[in-house]
Amino acid sequence: MKDQPKPLYLEDLHVGQRFTSGQYTLSADQIKAFAAEFDPQPFHLDEAAAENSVFRGLAASGWHTAAASMRLLVTGDFRIAGGLVGLAGEIEWPKPVRPGDTLRVESEITEILPSRTKPDRAVVTIRSVTVNQNGEQVQVMTAKLLVFRRERLAKP
Amino acid sequence: MKDQPKPLYLEDLHVGQRFTSGQYTLSADQIKAFAAEFDPQPFHLDEAAAENSVFRGLAASGWHTAAASMRLLVTGDFRIAGGLVGLAGEIEWPKPVRPGDTLRVESEITEILPSRTKPDRAVVTIRSVTVNQNGEQVQVMTAKLLVFRRERLAKP
Repeated sequence: MKDQPKPLYLEDLHVGQRFTSGQYTLSADQIKAFAAEFDPQPFHLDEAAAENSVFRGLAASGWHTAAASMRLLVTGDFRIAGGLVGLAGEIEWPKPVRPGDTLRVESEITEILPSRTKPDRAVVTIRSVTVNQNGEQVQVMTAKLLVFRRERLAKP
Repeated sequence: MKDQPKPLYLEDLHVGQRFTSGQYTLSADQIKAFAAEFDPQPFHLDEAAAENSVFRGLAASGWHTAAASMRLLVTGDFRIAGGLVGLAGEIEWPKPVRPGDTLRVESEITEILPSRTKPDRAVVTIRSVTVNQNGEQVQVMTAKLLVFRRERLAKP
C-alpha cells in the first residue's frame, strides 16, 4: 500500500517478529447490526434470547470478531507492501466477544516459506491473537499471506 | 433456534448429509462499505487502485465473503437447534469475489465426533463451499460446530 508509512517487504520479515495494533470497541448496537446483516441468530440479535442460549448473554458473531480483528491488523504496524492478501487461514474463538469489549491484536510471524517456482515471493504465516480488555483471548487466527520481495514491486 | 422451521438435532445428522442455501449478491458499494469498516485496503475500496493491485480489479475482502457465506448458511436449510455455534474453522479463498457476483453455499457434514465426557453433544464438522454464479469456488470453509441431542434442549 503506497500510501501507508513504511511498507514491509519480504526482506524486512523474520520468524518471531511481532506486531501490535490499536484498539477497537464493539457496542451492543454494532453487534446486532452486523448480525442482522450476516449472522441473524437470536444470541447475536437480542439480549433476552441470548440469555437463554449457550452464550448466556449477547455475543458478537465470530465473523464480526474476525472482521474487527482484520481492521486492527490492517491498521496496525504490520503494513505489507502491496497489501495483506490472505490465501487461507485457521480460526478459533475461545471466548465470546461481549458488548463494550475493547479488542486489540497481537501478531507474530511463525513461518516464511519461499515459493519454489517464483523467487520474488513467499507465503508468510502470521498468528494473530485477539484479546479483550481483560487480556482474555477471544480469537486466534493463523493466516497465510502472499508477500513479495522489494524488487518485484519496484518494477512495473 | 425455536422460531426456525424444523430445527435439526444431533440425531438428525449424518456424515455425507448435504445442505443448500439461497443466493446473495455483493454490489460494489457493499464491497467498499464493508472494507471501509473492516478491511480498509485500496484493492477493496477503490476501482482504480484495485486495477494496479494483485487482484487486478475491485475484490471483496475475504472477511466479507466469509460473512456473506455465514448469512447464506444460517438462512439456508442447515438449521441447528440452539443455533450455529462455531468453535473453530479453516478457511480458504481460491478466487476473489467481484462486484455483482451472486454467491450460494453448498455444505456437507464430513465428521461427527461425540463428546467423550458429555453424552448430550457432539462436535460436527461441516464443509461449506461458496460458489459464484459461474460455479467457481470463491471460499471453502471447514467449521467445527457444537450440536446437541434432542433431549438436552428439551430440558430446562
